[in-house]
Amino acid sequence: MSDTSPAILPKISLPSDVRKLTSDEQAKLCEEIRSTIIETVSDNGGHLSSNLGVVELSVALMRAFNPPEDNIVWDVGHQVYPYKLLTGRYNDFKSIRTEGGISGFPDKKESVFDSFTSGHASASISSALGASEADFHLGKANHTVAVIGDGALTGGLAYEGLNNAGRLKRNFIVILNDNKMSISKNVGSISRHLAYMRSRPGYINTKNRTEDFLGKTPFIGAGIARFLRWGKRTIKKLLYRSNVFEDMGFRYYGPFDGHNIEQVTEILEGAKLIDRPVLIHVRTYKGKGYRYAENAPGAFHGLSGFDVETGEMNGNMETFSDIFGKKLTELAGRNEKICAITAAMDSGTGLSYFKANFPDRFYDVGIAEEHAVTFAGGLATKGMLPVFAVYSTFLQRAYDEMIHDVSLQNAKIILGIDRCGFVGEDGKTHQGLLDSAYLRTVPNITVYSPAFYDELELQLEHLISHSGFSAIRYPRGTELYKPDYFKVSESAFSVFGDSSADIVIVSYGRLFSVAAQVFEKLRLKGLKVRHIKLNRIIPLDICAAEECLCAKRVFFIEEGTKQGGIGEGFCSSLYQSGFKGEFTLKAVDNIFQPHAPMYRLLEKNDLDFNGIMSSIEDNL
Amino acid sequence: MSDTSPAILPKISLPSDVRKLTSDEQAKLCEEIRSTIIETVSDNGGHLSSNLGVVELSVALMRAFNPPEDNIVWDVGHQVYPYKLLTGRYNDFKSIRTEGGISGFPDKKESVFDSFTSGHASASISSALGASEADFHLGKANHTVAVIGDGALTGGLAYEGLNNAGRLKRNFIVILNDNKMSISKNVGSISRHLAYMRSRPGYINTKNRTEDFLGKTPFIGAGIARFLRWGKRTIKKLLYRSNVFEDMGFRYYGPFDGHNIEQVTEILEGAKLIDRPVLIHVRTYKGKGYRYAENAPGAFHGLSGFDVETGEMNGNMETFSDIFGKKLTELAGRNEKICAITAAMDSGTGLSYFKANFPDRFYDVGIAEEHAVTFAGGLATKGMLPVFAVYSTFLQRAYDEMIHDVSLQNAKIILGIDRCGFVGEDGKTHQGLLDSAYLRTVPNITVYSPAFYDELELQLEHLISHSGFSAIRYPRGTELYKPDYFKVSESAFSVFGDSSADIVIVSYGRLFSVAAQVFEKLRLKGLKVRHIKLNRIIPLDICAAEECLCAKRVFFIEEGTKQGGIGEGFCSSLYQSGFKGEFTLKAVDNIFQPHAPMYRLLEKNDLDFNGIMSSIEDNL
Repeated sequence: MSDTSPAILPKISLPSDVRKLTSDEQAKLCEEIRSTIIETVSDNGGHLSSNLGVVELSVALMRAFNPPEDNIVWDVGHQVYPYKLLTGRYNDFKSIRTEGGISGFPDKKESVFDSFTSGHASASISSALGASEADFHLGKANHTVAVIGDGALTGGLAYEGLNNAGRLKRNFIVILNDNKMSISKNVGSISRHLAYMRSRPGYINTKNRTEDFLGKTPFIGAGIARFLRWGKRTIKKLLYRSNVFEDMGFRYYGPFDGHNIEQVTEILEGAKLIDRPVLIHVRTYKGKGYRYAENAPGAFHGLSGFDVETGEMNGNMETFSDIFGKKLTELAGRNEKICAITAAMDSGTGLSYFKANFPDRFYDVGIAEEHAVTFAGGLATKGMLPVFAVYSTFLQRAYDEMIHDVSLQNAKIILGIDRCGFVGEDGKTHQGLLDSAYLRTVPNITVYSPAFYDELELQLEHLISHSGFSAIRYPRGTELYKPDYFKVSESAFSVFGDSSADIVIVSYGRLFSVAAQVFEKLRLKGLKVRHIKLNRIIPLDICAAEECLCAKRVFFIEEGTKQGGIGEGFCSSLYQSGFKGEFTLKAVDNIFQPHAPMYRLLEKNDLDFNGIMSSIEDNL
Repeated sequence: MSDTSPAILPKISLPSDVRKLTSDEQAKLCEEIRSTIIETVSDNGGHLSSNLGVVELSVALMRAFNPPEDNIVWDVGHQVYPYKLLTGRYNDFKSIRTEGGISGFPDKKESVFDSFTSGHASASISSALGASEADFHLGKANHTVAVIGDGALTGGLAYEGLNNAGRLKRNFIVILNDNKMSISKNVGSISRHLAYMRSRPGYINTKNRTEDFLGKTPFIGAGIARFLRWGKRTIKKLLYRSNVFEDMGFRYYGPFDGHNIEQVTEILEGAKLIDRPVLIHVRTYKGKGYRYAENAPGAFHGLSGFDVETGEMNGNMETFSDIFGKKLTELAGRNEKICAITAAMDSGTGLSYFKANFPDRFYDVGIAEEHAVTFAGGLATKGMLPVFAVYSTFLQRAYDEMIHDVSLQNAKIILGIDRCGFVGEDGKTHQGLLDSAYLRTVPNITVYSPAFYDELELQLEHLISHSGFSAIRYPRGTELYKPDYFKVSESAFSVFGDSSADIVIVSYGRLFSVAAQVFEKLRLKGLKVRHIKLNRIIPLDICAAEECLCAKRVFFIEEGTKQGGIGEGFCSSLYQSGFKGEFTLKAVDNIFQPHAPMYRLLEKNDLDFNGIMSSIEDNL
């Protein structure tokens, strides 16, 4: 790392700026990119290893292509920092992931250099293919490049994209950024196949060698000649079709050293000339250039800040994820039918404990949420008890599978849904604001939403003995204010306050803590108030609505979308139970919520103490 | 076809029954299966071509395996008729797809021989892997077989399943039933790869030939020997890894003639002995044994009955799908940015017209709804106007992509959602009862729900000039009762009847026709009634709720799930607008709805004339 301020990087904002640099200046540029990223991420948190791995690749892309005229599509997008720094966002970079600052992911609204806004894995090839096809229809003569990691390649959507792109009769470039791992260690047979491909000499060379050799073969005996003729045909056919990408219609070149700017640029320039889909396989090293990250790329994947000198990370408080992982591990010790499944997120979801203790019953399926759910359905149908821990936003990928491959089978599986509600700095692609609404449409599911650690533990234990498809959902991070009158309960809802109250506040999950403070404040002001906490949110217990029938006003507080959420369902059962008072739903408008600290997002959506307080007082 | 009643088939219900038969008897059995299926489907409707193609394969499976001890998992399940006939359901077969009769798809509740209930594509490998893994944990020494068509192999979930199964160290069998087509003609590079594989001589032979030859090579010059040594290694490596399935960790054998019972049985017996995942590639012919279906397997895929002698099909009335397809084609003639996308359903969705007229702007992406949506997002981002026509139930597969790859991009695409509401005979996996609820959670989408053909045409035209992400949803089949006072309108809702009414009925989509009859009847009885028809269901126009404020009772009628649907949203905005009366929601309980004629499903869910009428009268 350099101790001085960057000298070259601030002057770069266009591909032509990069092309002007000498080799030495490019090397210096890479150093400056690395030190800028390390410093900023150590302050702001964010993705480190993935970004350090693609510094040279990003520079090579700027040399070989002309964004925004050419479309560069980054899969997931957690490796887009070097590209942001090279495309006019150096000055704003310090603001990354902070409120009002630039996003930690590609964002169309932020820059014309970002072709797509992204955050979920495996979509780049399909998006890029659409862009390429549209540009073709509209007569643009440009290039489209999708950059996808080996991790994202485990997702089915990437395969659907390859399958459809493979039949193009035009140039279309996929760069496989192979760093031998997804967020967790990579898995599956494709990963093994890549390992095999990595172990081979550069593919172009092998092919040339064969052809050269066969071209030069002198006169030989008839049997050998026949064999060689047959062999030549076979070898050529097989070499041309010797890996999964060629089978899928791509011209494959690689593997190349992704940290060699000259070579990668040259290969990309060559790839532009081919009027067919091309896959360029580059090897990179996650965390490259920062020794702590090189040694532990997984730990430095996504993080909340760290000390640059020591590599020590901030914020190692125990979270809902940890509690979930530990409790599940404890339960699995007593019940050998319990299995745990992750989609490449063992540490993020707290499953590392489980993995260490019960490796035989632990499944990392890669970034393949659909398979995770359908596989769980299969396990359950034959008598095991699978628990799939997954982030709320990523579970969206498996919506159909929950219905068709679990609920329809009447299979008993448990979803541990992490990062529900506002997630903060990861921003709009990662907010967990939809699960309580979309889960309501999944037939026969039971969903619990704890506000506190002890609740999570109790509810998880309860679900293990529950008879059907169920889920437990909890927020990112730690528990909030826990009133001393709160007692963990097995019932579907808990009631606090006056039975003859005019005002009823209904809440669930993390927002119970905020609503409880409002409830206490209102009581201090002498108002008669009740607070109903929904422990189970799906299906709603009709008795909870009945507890409100004597009230004049019901306020429903929800950290989730208004449209189709629990609040609307409560409203409907409330009035159909004969409620005659007024109902107010305080929830999140169904628009994309940008990155900002969690508490700020609550504030902006009037779901913090003041927001809830004033909406109640305004309505009294 | 035989003119006599089956003699062998009625005696078959177990694998052991099949194994007892001589070759001649097996051939006779296949004939009997075919004639039974042809006769029954000609009466009941159902899937024909796919079932006629797997008659011998089903017999071979019964010979080689021991279901239900062994797990046989049929992908999609529209090819399960021969298997049903062989596993104790001959006597019930006449009832297939009729109310109370057996299902047209595998159904766990119907028979222990059906490992999973299914109807959606590409899930079999993941489900089967779960079953196999569970049986392993529980110490069962059995076999698991997934049977998947080349069409279903275009879905990403199938790839995720292969990727995870490929690393097993145990026996696990996938049978690729390659009939060179999905429901529409098959597409994509995987399909081309299969065509290439089909063209090769049997793979086992090639491998043996190489090894034999190399083993026998006599003394030769040093250069040649070096080449051969290198070549031998390379050839072996390449042959062992010479197709996509071997790349993914499967032992590949094939292609074999799937209509040769002896050979397939032998191969399957062999496959059982391999302690690794095995893929057996068989070639079959859709519609085999019924000449009309052989000549037009697509037309005879799923149908509503036909004349056995002439091949003439019943029920060729114009449907919503046809109207949609024709109108879109007309609009595309005037606007060259319009493209059409189908996920292997060009004729089902009415897109055949478009395909014939604008082949350059028509995309069949295979059974890959996720890619379809993300690809559409890419096309739109760069200025084209893609329209994806898809069945409601299959769109579930692309829930995340609608949010992440379309809505988040602010991309203007149009979904033509077909088969919304009850679909009738295809049953629980095919009902379109969830879309109006799950679409409410997709940010910024606009959704129209026409009741009549002229509305569909007008709304589609309107959406073409609309600025964002939108959908138009319509039912299977034909329009129902159209009152003469109905006038097609561009507004978000239409109001009929008395402005000073005490009773308001609110409806949308097909059920407007039924609700209109109730409305008319109530008025004849002298009651003051209004009928509000929602033309646009998402977002709700708050003015529609305001039209109800003076009423005493509002009845909301919905052919869709109660939980999270339009009715709940209407209820919430109604009361938050200050409504003081009573609200009743008549919608569908969120449970799986079995196969039965559409009108019977309405009846059973109290959504026919009598059901709606009495629920209103009971509440007056």
